[in-house]
Amino acid sequence: MNVLAVLAPVSAVIALIFAYGLSSWIGKMDEGTDRMREISGYIREGAMAFLRREYKTMAVVILVLFLVLGFGIDWLTAVLYVFGALFSVLAGYCGMRVATKGNVRTASAAMSGGMNKALKVAFRSGAVMGLCVVGLGLLGIGGVFVLFGVESASVITGFGLGASSMALFGRVGGGIYTKAADVGADLVGKVEAGIPEDDPRNPAVIADNVGDNVGDVAGMGSDLFESYVGSIISAITLAVVMPSIKPTFGYEFDLPPLAGSVFPLVLSAIGIIASIIGIMCVRGNEKSNPAAALNAGTYISSAIVVVFSFVLSWVFFANFNCAIAIIAGLIVGIAIGKLTEFYTSGDYKHVKKISEQCQTGPATTIISGFGVGMLSTVWPIIMIAVGILVANAFAGLYGIALAAVGMLSTTGMVVAVDAYGPVSDNAGGIAEMSKLPKEVRMITDKLDAVGNTTAAIGKGFAIGSAALTALALFASYSQLAGLESISLLEPMVIAGLFIGAMLPFLFSALTMNSVGKAAYQMIEEVRRQFHCDAGIMEGTCKPDYARCVDISTKAALKEMMAPGLLAIIAPMAVGIIMGTEALGGMLAGALSSGVLVAIMMANAGGAWDNAKKYIEEGHFGGKGSESHKAAVVGDTVGDPFKDTAGPSINILIKLMTIVAVVFAPVFVAIGGLL
Amino acid sequence: MNVLAVLAPVSAVIALIFAYGLSSWIGKMDEGTDRMREISGYIREGAMAFLRREYKTMAVVILVLFLVLGFGIDWLTAVLYVFGALFSVLAGYCGMRVATKGNVRTASAAMSGGMNKALKVAFRSGAVMGLCVVGLGLLGIGGVFVLFGVESASVITGFGLGASSMALFGRVGGGIYTKAADVGADLVGKVEAGIPEDDPRNPAVIADNVGDNVGDVAGMGSDLFESYVGSIISAITLAVVMPSIKPTFGYEFDLPPLAGSVFPLVLSAIGIIASIIGIMCVRGNEKSNPAAALNAGTYISSAIVVVFSFVLSWVFFANFNCAIAIIAGLIVGIAIGKLTEFYTSGDYKHVKKISEQCQTGPATTIISGFGVGMLSTVWPIIMIAVGILVANAFAGLYGIALAAVGMLSTTGMVVAVDAYGPVSDNAGGIAEMSKLPKEVRMITDKLDAVGNTTAAIGKGFAIGSAALTALALFASYSQLAGLESISLLEPMVIAGLFIGAMLPFLFSALTMNSVGKAAYQMIEEVRRQFHCDAGIMEGTCKPDYARCVDISTKAALKEMMAPGLLAIIAPMAVGIIMGTEALGGMLAGALSSGVLVAIMMANAGGAWDNAKKYIEEGHFGGKGSESHKAAVVGDTVGDPFKDTAGPSINILIKLMTIVAVVFAPVFVAIGGLL
Repeated sequence: MNVLAVLAPVSAVIALIFAYGLSSWIGKMDEGTDRMREISGYIREGAMAFLRREYKTMAVVILVLFLVLGFGIDWLTAVLYVFGALFSVLAGYCGMRVATKGNVRTASAAMSGGMNKALKVAFRSGAVMGLCVVGLGLLGIGGVFVLFGVESASVITGFGLGASSMALFGRVGGGIYTKAADVGADLVGKVEAGIPEDDPRNPAVIADNVGDNVGDVAGMGSDLFESYVGSIISAITLAVVMPSIKPTFGYEFDLPPLAGSVFPLVLSAIGIIASIIGIMCVRGNEKSNPAAALNAGTYISSAIVVVFSFVLSWVFFANFNCAIAIIAGLIVGIAIGKLTEFYTSGDYKHVKKISEQCQTGPATTIISGFGVGMLSTVWPIIMIAVGILVANAFAGLYGIALAAVGMLSTTGMVVAVDAYGPVSDNAGGIAEMSKLPKEVRMITDKLDAVGNTTAAIGKGFAIGSAALTALALFASYSQLAGLESISLLEPMVIAGLFIGAMLPFLFSALTMNSVGKAAYQMIEEVRRQFHCDAGIMEGTCKPDYARCVDISTKAALKEMMAPGLLAIIAPMAVGIIMGTEALGGMLAGALSSGVLVAIMMANAGGAWDNAKKYIEEGHFGGKGSESHKAAVVGDTVGDPFKDTAGPSINILIKLMTIVAVVFAPVFVAIGGLL
Repeated sequence: MNVLAVLAPVSAVIALIFAYGLSSWIGKMDEGTDRMREISGYIREGAMAFLRREYKTMAVVILVLFLVLGFGIDWLTAVLYVFGALFSVLAGYCGMRVATKGNVRTASAAMSGGMNKALKVAFRSGAVMGLCVVGLGLLGIGGVFVLFGVESASVITGFGLGASSMALFGRVGGGIYTKAADVGADLVGKVEAGIPEDDPRNPAVIADNVGDNVGDVAGMGSDLFESYVGSIISAITLAVVMPSIKPTFGYEFDLPPLAGSVFPLVLSAIGIIASIIGIMCVRGNEKSNPAAALNAGTYISSAIVVVFSFVLSWVFFANFNCAIAIIAGLIVGIAIGKLTEFYTSGDYKHVKKISEQCQTGPATTIISGFGVGMLSTVWPIIMIAVGILVANAFAGLYGIALAAVGMLSTTGMVVAVDAYGPVSDNAGGIAEMSKLPKEVRMITDKLDAVGNTTAAIGKGFAIGSAALTALALFASYSQLAGLESISLLEPMVIAGLFIGAMLPFLFSALTMNSVGKAAYQMIEEVRRQFHCDAGIMEGTCKPDYARCVDISTKAALKEMMAPGLLAIIAPMAVGIIMGTEALGGMLAGALSSGVLVAIMMANAGGAWDNAKKYIEEGHFGGKGSESHKAAVVGDTVGDPFKDTAGPSINILIKLMTIVAVVFAPVFVAIGGLL
């Protein structure tokens, strides 16, 4: 059976080769006019410079944790930690490089070849990111497994820790960067100076476009890299500690460590192949809607995974229990995605209601959006609870991990769909700044809008898998810490639960505060430039783009440290001071409140965004009306909710759990100071 | 020892006699001019009419639950449930009657006797409410205990259920009433029509003043009635199930059911006497600040409780462990109160920072206030966690219950300080509407402002005691359900935890949505009146106050049902369908996320309110500036946060736990359908 594990690195390499092929194809596309080249050059340079500086800053954190792990746990874990971090960096770097090439080529394709060609270029740019994420992820885990066999279960968490810590810093840093630039560009440029979005006279316009890349492409890529890696690791570690599965439904079956570990690897290998097939199936058609093309790709790859999960489940365990757990995960993910759409799309009643409330001003806009965000937690949470119970009923805790693996097996496809949005968005920015014909912008806007809807499924997968993965890792933690029960009747556990539930609130407060501070600096700088040089507004002088890029970069790097370190230090402090049971309580508290805060923030933000768009379509007074102004307030409040704080919490809960897993032996040895 | 239990009803009767005395004293005060009488008559009528209709609506709920309890549990519990509900009604009714007499007399006293006399009248009006709450609460529990002895432990939870369910409906209904009227009066009157606060031309002005009474007086009173009763009940039920205490610190000691039950009763009896002494010590002095007088009363009564807790602890258990648990509770309560002040008062940096952010518009105002609300959860949660651990270390789970009892023993004094604020606020409204000299309004404003600060301690006690009481009831639940452990490693418990953590979000969404709907109707009506009758604005025609009162009343009664029933039905559904362990997980989830959401909402709302006031004092542009407009948006968003959703969550978590306690035998018998 061990030999099947080789499928993992093999399929990973196939993905990387395929990514390379797509990337070369994109490189050969036309870059358009000189002006387009120039602008996309600025964006690429800014984005790359940010990533380089971010990685340099991170190098210190990586080095410190490497030493802590080496001396505290063992050196193999420490080395794998570094590999996890490096692979995450590599995935983000390669993906973003291609995305920053793809944007200008998408604009050019829209100009010369119309919607279909533009879709192809944009989607393939996103697909490179998707394939890099899954290719590097499975290459890392699969490679380690092939080298060390089931023994790798005890050290592979190091790889996960590397991926998670980079993801958190990447998401937070990228999120702060993009929102500082966005708010700065919008508030001074659009609102105060009255110039349109992406106008080249706006000094923050390049920083804004750079932000889309470092936040929505690189940040999102490292986020899904860690989700992908985390779910597979959680399944492997559980397989090694659980001797057999006694399900409530179906037959009891053995779970040999080897078969249990190889199963998720092979499933992920098939997921990669399924993603490649899905990616190839996305081809526009002048008659059809681009959304249909993207959805077709997603459904095809999911269908392949479903079929093979039955086959594999039978081959490995002689029953279909594991397949049912996987399908439960897929259904939960899709359901959360659809629910997300229901609460955040302008086609449904909630967003329309928020738009209506915009008529009575910003206060009622905020209250109703906030209410929708809170209300939107109900069904996703019930779905997650049902998913947990079904997966557990058929395949125990291992089933819960498999549900997450199943959900994320088609990550290649999901990331492709997700990353294609910001590429199109950037293409629109380049078109605007290069003064291309209006039709070009219309095409990129259309592509972007479609991306927003299709990406809802991706969000559902991100949230659902985060909850399930964290839970599976939590189960591994309890095994490693030797806890047979973490009882809520122990005051220590309850104290931990309270502290854990508080952490997502503290974390959100820190990140939102950071966005506020960074945006404030950006606003000041843009105002200063407009004030000092009248030629900028007249269009006779070029604004100092670099300075705005620099402000965002510096602020993001400085501000990402506190929330990032909180996620690493909090579980260590609780584990050392309060002991392993309290840490269990803390993780459960952070998991439950974190998922809720994340859903609330993401959906409130999304709903405000689309309420604004709904009004811009001409409802309730349309653009420029008082309702629209209120809607802009809602959208601005929602920005850090949905693009900074919300998505980072998904990583936070997994990172804290993986820190607990890795350091469990240390906490057991200390035994709690209290 | 049993004989000491008699102290409870005796001191309760003393409190009620004292309340009667104060109430007669207030009745003899001068009511001022005819105009003042007329206006206060409207307010009193509106408030009383609302309460009567609310109680009539509630009668159906009470009847249904009475039958469910009678047939499902036993008839004694059912009868005590009705008594709990009736005593809660009585406390709210009597307190509010006096408050609606006190308001006009406070205004009159301010006119004739100055600050000191006004303080005396206002404070004594609040004190009647405080004494009614503790008097009726301890009369009920003490009476039951004297009649049935330790056997009462199994039925007294019925009394608590009655108090809790009335409190939730009262808080939610009152909260919706007051905020609908407030928002309606402000948005149309102040903002659109440009007339000042409490202007008699505003059709919603009477409804607004009625709202202060039904929300901030009656609602708050029933809230603290249930906290008070709930904490004592949790201590009694724990004492009966726990044979001995094995503390980490100090000696192990027996906990005989009788001594363990009588102890909290005697402690509360002393708390009542301490509150009466504290109330008598509040006497203004022309030279001193009224805040000093109020604080002196609070500190004196707390000091008496501290001294006697040592005496009682020694007399009952021959050690000081229980006293330490009580003091831990008191310290946590005071600390949370001080922290509340730090995050929500204009004297400290956070509110100043929000005010500064008002300069860049409503969006940054909302983001920063929201950030402050989230940040403000950190230290209170740590304090609660430490309080739990210290109380448990010295006196086990029983100690946690005692910490809550200790915190709430001076409830009489706390409610007096709390209720005095809205009385002063109302007095100001009457002064304005009766066109009394400006000095009168200045005095009532000063009294109101002082009340806001001193009330912070009360908020700390409300939140801290809610967490501790719910936890103690949770422990009783586990005993009654026969659960030795509620392990977070069970998927069923985790599913329950997720659902429980979601409930405060759903509950808040429902209540905020209700405020929005009710406010919308009010806005329409006020606009309609201004539009139809030009004489209203000219001051030649009297607006139709009754119609606005009617809208608030109807909306509040209709909208309070869904969130109220949710709190009763959710734990029953989870207990029946998912079983007792899942219900344990649900309660812990609701407790942890509920406390956080409650603190966040209360403090964000308070901070926005005071940021607005800070700007009105002349900072960052002062009244009428753009900053002020942004601050008004923040304040309007904060209103339903801090006065409707936030405080109701404290009751929600206790009500759900007490439902679980009462129905535990049913859930055990069913055994979970899943």
